[in-house]
Amino acid sequence: MSFLEISITDKPKLNNAILIEGLPGIGNVGKLAVSHLINVLNAKKSLEIYSSSLPPQVKINKGGIISLTNNEFHYYKNSSNQRDIIFLTGEHQGLDHEGQYNLCIKIIELAKEMGVTEIITLGGYGLGKIVDNPRVLGAATSTSMVNKLKKAGVEFSEDQEDSNAGIIGASGLLLGLGRLEGLEGGCLMGETSGYIADPKSAREILSILQKLLSIEIDLSELDEKVEKVGAITKHLAGLSNPLEESEADINYIE
Amino acid sequence: MSFLEISITDKPKLNNAILIEGLPGIGNVGKLAVSHLINVLNAKKSLEIYSSSLPPQVKINKGGIISLTNNEFHYYKNSSNQRDIIFLTGEHQGLDHEGQYNLCIKIIELAKEMGVTEIITLGGYGLGKIVDNPRVLGAATSTSMVNKLKKAGVEFSEDQEDSNAGIIGASGLLLGLGRLEGLEGGCLMGETSGYIADPKSAREILSILQKLLSIEIDLSELDEKVEKVGAITKHLAGLSNPLEESEADINYIE
Amino acid sequence: MSFLEISITDKPKLNNAILIEGLPGIGNVGKLAVSHLINVLNAKKSLEIYSSSLPPQVKINKGGIISLTNNEFHYYKNSSNQRDIIFLTGEHQGLDHEGQYNLCIKIIELAKEMGVTEIITLGGYGLGKIVDNPRVLGAATSTSMVNKLKKAGVEFSEDQEDSNAGIIGASGLLLGLGRLEGLEGGCLMGETSGYIADPKSAREILSILQKLLSIEIDLSELDEKVEKVGAITKHLAGLSNPLEESEADINYIE
Amino acid sequence: MSFLEISITDKPKLNNAILIEGLPGIGNVGKLAVSHLINVLNAKKSLEIYSSSLPPQVKINKGGIISLTNNEFHYYKNSSNQRDIIFLTGEHQGLDHEGQYNLCIKIIELAKEMGVTEIITLGGYGLGKIVDNPRVLGAATSTSMVNKLKKAGVEFSEDQEDSNAGIIGASGLLLGLGRLEGLEGGCLMGETSGYIADPKSAREILSILQKLLSIEIDLSELDEKVEKVGAITKHLAGLSNPLEESEADINYIE
Repeated sequence: MSFLEISITDKPKLNNAILIEGLPGIGNVGKLAVSHLINVLNAKKSLEIYSSSLPPQVKINKGGIISLTNNEFHYYKNSSNQRDIIFLTGEHQGLDHEGQYNLCIKIIELAKEMGVTEIITLGGYGLGKIVDNPRVLGAATSTSMVNKLKKAGVEFSEDQEDSNAGIIGASGLLLGLGRLEGLEGGCLMGETSGYIADPKSAREILSILQKLLSIEIDLSELDEKVEKVGAITKHLAGLSNPLEESEADINYIE
Repeated sequence: MSFLEISITDKPKLNNAILIEGLPGIGNVGKLAVSHLINVLNAKKSLEIYSSSLPPQVKINKGGIISLTNNEFHYYKNSSNQRDIIFLTGEHQGLDHEGQYNLCIKIIELAKEMGVTEIITLGGYGLGKIVDNPRVLGAATSTSMVNKLKKAGVEFSEDQEDSNAGIIGASGLLLGLGRLEGLEGGCLMGETSGYIADPKSAREILSILQKLLSIEIDLSELDEKVEKVGAITKHLAGLSNPLEESEADINYIE
Repeated sequence: MSFLEISITDKPKLNNAILIEGLPGIGNVGKLAVSHLINVLNAKKSLEIYSSSLPPQVKINKGGIISLTNNEFHYYKNSSNQRDIIFLTGEHQGLDHEGQYNLCIKIIELAKEMGVTEIITLGGYGLGKIVDNPRVLGAATSTSMVNKLKKAGVEFSEDQEDSNAGIIGASGLLLGLGRLEGLEGGCLMGETSGYIADPKSAREILSILQKLLSIEIDLSELDEKVEKVGAITKHLAGLSNPLEESEADINYIE
Repeated sequence: MSFLEISITDKPKLNNAILIEGLPGIGNVGKLAVSHLINVLNAKKSLEIYSSSLPPQVKINKGGIISLTNNEFHYYKNSSNQRDIIFLTGEHQGLDHEGQYNLCIKIIELAKEMGVTEIITLGGYGLGKIVDNPRVLGAATSTSMVNKLKKAGVEFSEDQEDSNAGIIGASGLLLGLGRLEGLEGGCLMGETSGYIADPKSAREILSILQKLLSIEIDLSELDEKVEKVGAITKHLAGLSNPLEESEADINYIE
């Protein structure tokens, strides 16, 4: 007996749209990138997905107002003859394997109803160490999609055959399930330490997305976050037990 | 395949009633407060909810009589032209995320059938240290509800926007799900160490509720518990490993 | 989507029968007692319950023959004008809370179909230390059942009201759910260390059951097990790290 | 609400076919053996099972192409008047007890539709130490199946009655559930340390299968893997903390 409720604000029919996923994950890279896009593109709230596959909790927002944990769609109507975009974000992914499947299946169903034909998922690729110039690695559902991503600057490692590489969670599942539903897609993974929320890695992903979507993205706000985290990280490098003492502060950078 | 059975003793139709939740949680604050209210107001048993979302166990009561784990409604008909009240309590919350959702959805459904239009949830706000004068913090589903709680003495922290604050479990979920069902509500969280059952924190919540509900509550029995715990705590302060040695005794104060 | 299959060997209609549960638990006391009863009373196999609430595994029996994990009914037609008995046993209890509920509900349904009107559950009461003369403690669904058990020698602790005492798992759940279905019942808990399979505790339970059921039970085989475990335990008392070195041997005593 | 989708490439009706299972497990023995058989017999892809009982993840294959986690059937039409074979393999088993049951029930249903009348499951028997000449141990659903396996060289331990031996996961469950559906079967367990993927143990199983299925199996590729692992193991024997330093390398041998 699963609970699922869709609260619709505005559910327009889009044309040949792209779904871009940015749920929480490694280094919060995907969520940082998509939250930034929603802000700078002034994307409109479309709908909220409430589900018993998400944690049983509420968030306390500004002014003490409560909101139930959800996954949300925002949409962006692209005036310049480019493809429309739906952004998927939220505070949590599904809590277990059944929950992950149930939520992703519902997300794909809703996305298709709104005209989505392609899925781009965003995430972090954890390296376990600080990386100065994070690359953006990729994976995709078809060779033509791989080539499209390569042209935009995404890198594909040559030796993936042997490495048991995989993508865990919504960033992988949306592509795997989407393909069963006839949607092509790809995943952009920004290299990141995995220790802290990483706006630098998110910034690299957005640089790629600019080319991929032929869209102008104002990155100035994200640049500020990059500097802020950079300053904290430098400061931490001088401390003996850096993560314990200041993890909280860094988490504020969302 | 979930099991759910409602055993009804008395299910009156109430008018514009308030549901007050006091299930076990941090410092057992909510449960202590609601159990006290049921006693001093002599609230009547309404119904029992048995569910496979609760632990598979029975309690052994006085005289060796067994009772299956449940959540219970008691109701209080308010003669003095004030709103009627339903009290929700029990020995356990739902065991996992699906269980939490399923139980809270059923509770809201039953509450609405009985005439509930507002939900007040009670809980503890864990500080990790002993606090001498616990405040009562709040969160609510609407600005008007926030204002109502403020007027009764509930405090709202100003910087909650940045803090990722949330309410986990039934105290949050009943409000989040209730709002989807058209019920407004708020949560009262008594500051508490989180280490022991805390009647002092529960007492603060009841002081607020007196104003909020325009109701007289005899607090003498709770005052005794406060003194008892105070004495134990002082005694413990002189011991090297206080919690290990006397946790059991303190748990008796329910 | 739960899997449940009942494989029936012989499902007679019994008259005013008692269900006696002996699934694995603390000290394996309940299972030891019921397995002994099935043997000495030569009870007949009635049915097997296969369920996805049980572990996904098979047992390898004598000769290398596999059998799927299950719960089983054996029945005993009591010729001497006494009540018939159904014995419930198995290698495992349900694996999680939903599984425990689902299995117990099905067991009660099947038991009622076969004419069961009363449930006696058997288990261990873990003390955390070796006990020389284990008592048999009780709990029951009604005062009349409490009195019946007391008359047969079961002890009821006086101060249970304060102690948050409970019975976890099938031994409790069958009674709690059974009562919702109109079946009265009681639980016999043999005191045991909880460290090893404890035939001595099982023996005490069977002594009580002899009186309760007005039935003659040959205890000689169990007496041998008691002696065997006694010898091992004495031997262990001289070793520095007893449990680690010989847990395996003691487990053979089933 | 479980997700299950079968993607069919080719689902021929076979005659009196055998299902051979080689999902991941102890020492990866079963998967190594079945993957080898699929390769050398050039078995054809039949169908893919996608399920929310499997992990919510995708694999990244050669060229960066994503594939959703699944279980797969390949089939081999045996021209030489012998029985046809369906091979079951995949990257994962079902994730929890419900998932294991659900997947195995579906697998048996599909296998029966395709004409399977017997199931052989392959796995490792973990010894916790390196073994030079691994034996192949067996268990089966019937005495005639035990005898058939014995004739092919499978060993059955004499004292299994006392040992609480069992088979956990798909290798056991397919046989236990299959028998409820009228399918006989057996399990071949190659002795293995359990520490590393073990092609030597898989090789022993294939030697048995050659006799059991009256089929010629080219083992040269597997011999190379055996040598490779042997070399690594010898090298490791000289190191102080062998597993930590080179576990990754050995895992490449699939």
